Amino acid sequence: MEKEQNNIEIRRHSLAHILAAAVGELYPKVKFGMGPATDKGFYYDFDFGEENIGEEDLKKIEKKMKHLIKQNLKFKKSELDISEALSREKGGGQNYKAELVEELKKEGEKKANYHQLGEFKDLCKGPHVNSTKELNPKAFKLTSLAGAYWKGNENNNMLTRIYGVAFDTPQELEEYLRLVEETKKRDHRKLGRELDLFCFSDLVGPGLPMFTPKGTIIINELRKKVEEICSGYGFENVITPHLAKIDLYQLSGHADKFADELFHVTSKHKQDYVMKPVQCPHQTQIYASRPRSYRDLPIRYMESEKQYRAEKPGEIGGLTRVIAITVEDGHSFCRVEQVKQEVKNMVEIIKNFYTSLGLWENHWVSLSVRDYEHPEKYIGDPGDWDTCEKMLGEICEDMNLEAKRCEGEAALYGPKIDFMFKDALGKEIQIPTVQLDFATPKKFNLVFTNEKGEEENPVMVHRAILGSYERFLSLLIEHFAGAFPVWLSPVQVKILSVGEAHHDYCQKLAQELRQHQLRVETDTDSDTINYKIRKATGEKVPYVLVIGDKEVESDKLSIRDRGQAKTREVDKKEFIKEIKKEINNF
Amino acid sequence: MEKEQNNIEIRRHSLAHILAAAVGELYPKVKFGMGPATDKGFYYDFDFGEENIGEEDLKKIEKKMKHLIKQNLKFKKSELDISEALSREKGGGQNYKAELVEELKKEGEKKANYHQLGEFKDLCKGPHVNSTKELNPKAFKLTSLAGAYWKGNENNNMLTRIYGVAFDTPQELEEYLRLVEETKKRDHRKLGRELDLFCFSDLVGPGLPMFTPKGTIIINELRKKVEEICSGYGFENVITPHLAKIDLYQLSGHADKFADELFHVTSKHKQDYVMKPVQCPHQTQIYASRPRSYRDLPIRYMESEKQYRAEKPGEIGGLTRVIAITVEDGHSFCRVEQVKQEVKNMVEIIKNFYTSLGLWENHWVSLSVRDYEHPEKYIGDPGDWDTCEKMLGEICEDMNLEAKRCEGEAALYGPKIDFMFKDALGKEIQIPTVQLDFATPKKFNLVFTNEKGEEENPVMVHRAILGSYERFLSLLIEHFAGAFPVWLSPVQVKILSVGEAHHDYCQKLAQELRQHQLRVETDTDSDTINYKIRKATGEKVPYVLVIGDKEVESDKLSIRDRGQAKTREVDKKEFIKEIKKEINNF
Repeated sequence: MEKEQNNIEIRRHSLAHILAAAVGELYPKVKFGMGPATDKGFYYDFDFGEENIGEEDLKKIEKKMKHLIKQNLKFKKSELDISEALSREKGGGQNYKAELVEELKKEGEKKANYHQLGEFKDLCKGPHVNSTKELNPKAFKLTSLAGAYWKGNENNNMLTRIYGVAFDTPQELEEYLRLVEETKKRDHRKLGRELDLFCFSDLVGPGLPMFTPKGTIIINELRKKVEEICSGYGFENVITPHLAKIDLYQLSGHADKFADELFHVTSKHKQDYVMKPVQCPHQTQIYASRPRSYRDLPIRYMESEKQYRAEKPGEIGGLTRVIAITVEDGHSFCRVEQVKQEVKNMVEIIKNFYTSLGLWENHWVSLSVRDYEHPEKYIGDPGDWDTCEKMLGEICEDMNLEAKRCEGEAALYGPKIDFMFKDALGKEIQIPTVQLDFATPKKFNLVFTNEKGEEENPVMVHRAILGSYERFLSLLIEHFAGAFPVWLSPVQVKILSVGEAHHDYCQKLAQELRQHQLRVETDTDSDTINYKIRKATGEKVPYVLVIGDKEVESDKLSIRDRGQAKTREVDKKEFIKEIKKEINNF
Repeated sequence: MEKEQNNIEIRRHSLAHILAAAVGELYPKVKFGMGPATDKGFYYDFDFGEENIGEEDLKKIEKKMKHLIKQNLKFKKSELDISEALSREKGGGQNYKAELVEELKKEGEKKANYHQLGEFKDLCKGPHVNSTKELNPKAFKLTSLAGAYWKGNENNNMLTRIYGVAFDTPQELEEYLRLVEETKKRDHRKLGRELDLFCFSDLVGPGLPMFTPKGTIIINELRKKVEEICSGYGFENVITPHLAKIDLYQLSGHADKFADELFHVTSKHKQDYVMKPVQCPHQTQIYASRPRSYRDLPIRYMESEKQYRAEKPGEIGGLTRVIAITVEDGHSFCRVEQVKQEVKNMVEIIKNFYTSLGLWENHWVSLSVRDYEHPEKYIGDPGDWDTCEKMLGEICEDMNLEAKRCEGEAALYGPKIDFMFKDALGKEIQIPTVQLDFATPKKFNLVFTNEKGEEENPVMVHRAILGSYERFLSLLIEHFAGAFPVWLSPVQVKILSVGEAHHDYCQKLAQELRQHQLRVETDTDSDTINYKIRKATGEKVPYVLVIGDKEVESDKLSIRDRGQAKTREVDKKEFIKEIKKEINNF
C-alpha cells in the first residue's frame, strides 16, 4: 500500500517534468520554476514573459505531453558541479532555476542533480519513473491554471501555475473528474439560489444570510428534530439575548479567546455591550438565577440562537463562513457521578440525529484526554479528570464507538469526544462533540447544595449536535444535492393541473393533503403539463402529482417520484399513508 | 356627570386641607407647601424640619383627620391684603407660603384668598366643600409618603409629600384598594420570579431578560399559536439576522427615526453594522431577492425575532421596557385590489388570537385616516389612499368592528386600524394593528411584473398581533395573575406522591401523560403531602394529582383543580380526554 502510494507520487512528479518539457517545446522562451506532485496530481510554475496563456492552451499542452509519453522516453539522471550548473542556468536565462542552484550552493552542496527527458534537462533530485512507458497517457489531465508568486512570496514575480490531476488508471481519473463535476453541481450557493433557500443583500451586508420561506422550513424542521430528540433526554429550551456586558466574557475567558472576533455594541445611552460569540455564559446565568439543590440536578438547557463573530471580510462566503451563526447549543449541569449517564445520553442523541440523516453508518470517533506528562496545564481536580476520562472510555466501549484515544488533545477544562462523518462525496464532516468542563462552573461560582447542606460546583457538559444551522444546511444541500429527505423537503408534494378543468380539484386535493400536515404546492398556471413537470423536477420535489381527467374522476393519483421518469398510479388513501410513513420513519 | 366629577375633585381638594390642618395640630413646627387634588385623591407637601416622619405616622394623622371631619367644621373664606398676607406668613415662619404670596404680588394681585377650617387658616383660592359634613370619613385613606422637591425643582428643598386616596363612597375606596392590592400581587416582576419564568443577571446587563425553561414554554406556545393561525392565512416564516449595514435603515428612514435608539456595532475587521430596530427592512430584502410576478402575490412573511433598541438606563424595567425586544412581525406584499382581503385576513387573525386568550369581547377599534386638509403631507398616490381608506371602512363595517374614525391619525405612509383591549384589572392594552404602507416598497424599489409585462410596486401591509413577546408576557402574567390557561401553562399537570410506595406509579403515570403531549411534573420528594400540595398551589398548576394507595390500585385519579380546595375523583381516560379538550379549545 505504502509502496503504491509512492509509485503514484513518483508518476505524478514525473508528469510535472513532462508538462515542463511539453511547455518548453511549445514556448521556447519560457522560464521554469518548480513542479512538485500534489495530493491528486501535480503542477508546474512557469514564467511565460510577454506571452498570454489561457485555459484554451491547456489542450495543446496536454496533447504534446501525451505525444512525449508515447515516445517511451527515459528519465536519465546526471550530476553537474554547482558552478557548472549555475552557469548553465544563467546562460540559458533560467533565473528561477539559477536561484535554486544558488541555494544549493549556500547549503554547501557541491553537485546539482539533473534529470534529462528527451531534449529536456531539468534541475531535480527525483525520483522519477525510469521511462514514460510507465505512465498511462489516459490517466492524467491538465485541469486549470492560476497565478502564483514565485516561492509563494507576494514580493516575488507572479508566475503561471498549470495544474494537472493524475491517477493510476483512466477509471480513477474519470471517477475523480465526475466527483469534481458533481461537487460543482452540488455547490450550496448555486443550489441555494436555484431552490430559493436563502439570499443575501448588499444593503444588509456580507455574511448575513436571510432565509426565505423554503430555507426557513428546513432550518425549523432540523430544529424541531433535534429538540424533539433532546427533550426526550430532559433538555429544556431557554431563550437568551444576543448581547451581554463584556464582563460576562471577561469572566468566562471568551473576551480574550475571541478578542479579534468580538462585535462591540455602543449606543447614545452609554451602555456598552458585546454580541455573544458563544452561548454557554448566558446559560450559566440562568442556572445561577436561583438556589439549586442536588435534587434538581441534572439541569439541562438547550437553545438555537444566533451568535455573532466578526470574520475577515475576505473569508466570508456562502453559508460556510458567516458572521450571524445560528448555533444549536446545549449544556447539562450535573454531579461527577452523573456525568456518565449524561454523556451516554448525548451520544445517543447524536446517534439518533445522524441516523435520521443516513450519516451514522460512516462515522469515527476520537476520545481526547490529557497530556499525562503535563498535568499542570489542565484546570480541575485530577481525581475528577481520572474519573471522567475513565467514564468516557467506558462509554466508547459500551456503545461500540471504537474511539481513537488522543492523548494531549483534551481541552484545558476537560476531556471530550468528537464525531466525524463522511458525506455523499466523501468529504469529512466534523461537527458533533461532547465536552466535559470542570472550569466554567467554578469561574461563575455555580453551586448546588448537596445532601449534607454543603455547596458544591456542578460539572458542565457541553454538547454540539449539528453545530451551526448555516454550515449544517450547506453540508446537507451538498450531501443530498438539494434532493432532501421527505421530512426535510420544503415542498413535499406538488400538484400539477393538466388543464383548466382540473384546477378546482387540485386546490381541493391540496387542502386535503395539508390537513394531513403535508407541505403542498399547486401549479395551476396555464403552462403545458410538460413544462410544469420539468419545473417541479428542477425544484427536486419528492412527489409530483399530475391531475387530469382520469384523476378528477377517480380516487387514484398519478405520481412521479423524484428521480423517476415514469409515473405510477396509487390510491389516494394509500399515498397519504405511504408519505406519512416515509416522514415518520425519520 | 361633569358636575359630579367636579364634586369629587372639590372633596379631594378639601381633604388636602384637612390633612394640612391635622398635620398642623400634630406637628406645630411644620411648614406648609401646596396640596392639590389628584386623579384618585390628593396630596400635601410638608417641611417637617428635623422631625422624622414615616409610613407608621400616617395612621395617627388619618385619625386626626377623621376627628376634624366629624366636628362638622365649616370652610370659611376670607381675603387678606397682599402685604398683610405676606407678613402673616413670614411672621409664622411659613416661608413656602410666603413665596406663594410673593408670586401673587408679582402677578399684580392686591388680595390673597384664605380658607379657614377650625383653627387652621390656609392660603388657597378654593373651591372647597362648605362643611366637613359633606365628607365621608370612611371614603378616604392616606396611602403613602415620599420625598418631593418644592415646586418639582431639584434645586429646591426636599419636602415630604403625603398621599391620600378619596372617593364618593367607602365601597369605591374599598374596590380601589383591592385593585391596588391585586395589581401589586400580580406584578409581573414579582410573579415572574416566583413562578421562575425569567431572570436577569448583572453580568449580562439590564434590559436583557433571559427566559428559563418555564418562561420559554409560554413564549414558544404563544409563538406556535400565532404562527399556526397566521399560516392558515398564507403567512410563511422567514429568518433574518439582527444586524444590517446602516444603509438599509438610511433608505427605510429608520436611521433617522431611531437615531437615539440605534445600537452601533463595530469590530476589528472594520465592518460596521447597526442592530435592527425594526423587522420590516430585512423582509423587503427577501422580497427583492428574486423577480416577482403578479401570479406570486400576495407574498406574506412572518418572523418572531429580537430587535434591539437602546433605552435610557433609568427607563429600563421588568419585561415592559427592555432593550432586547422579541417582536412578532409580519407583512403582506400585495396589489391594491388585494388589500381588502389581506386586511380582512389580518383582522380575522387578531380576532382569533385574542379570542383564544378571552380578551376579544372587550375591545374597541380606531380607524386612522388622512388629515384631508393637508393631503400634501402623505406619501403615495391619492387615488390609492382613497381606495384603501374606503376598503378599511368597509371592512370595519362588514366585520362589525364599530371602529372610531380618526382623521389625521394615519401614518405618513398609509391608513391603519388599531385594536384596544382591557385586561382583568381594567388596564388598557393597545397592541394589534394593521397598517397600509405605500412608501416602503417604493423606497426599496420592490416591484412585480403585471399581466402586461410592466413593473408595478406592491402595497406593503404591516400587521402586529401580539407585539413584543416580552411586553405581552408581562401583560398576560398580570392579566391571569400567573394562573395561565392550560394551553399556556408551563406545567399542566403535577403529580404528587403521598408516600414512597407511590413513587413508581407517579413516574409511570407521568410518562403516560407525556405521551399525550401533556407537560407533566412529578413531586416524589420526601416532604408531607400537605406541603407538596401547598407548593403546587403556589406554582399555579392547573391540575394537581395526588397519588396514594387508592390511586395506585385503580384507574381513578384524585384531582385538585386550580383554585379549588376540594379534590374530585375522575377516571384516568376521562381526565386525559378532558384536559386535551381544554387545551384544544384555545
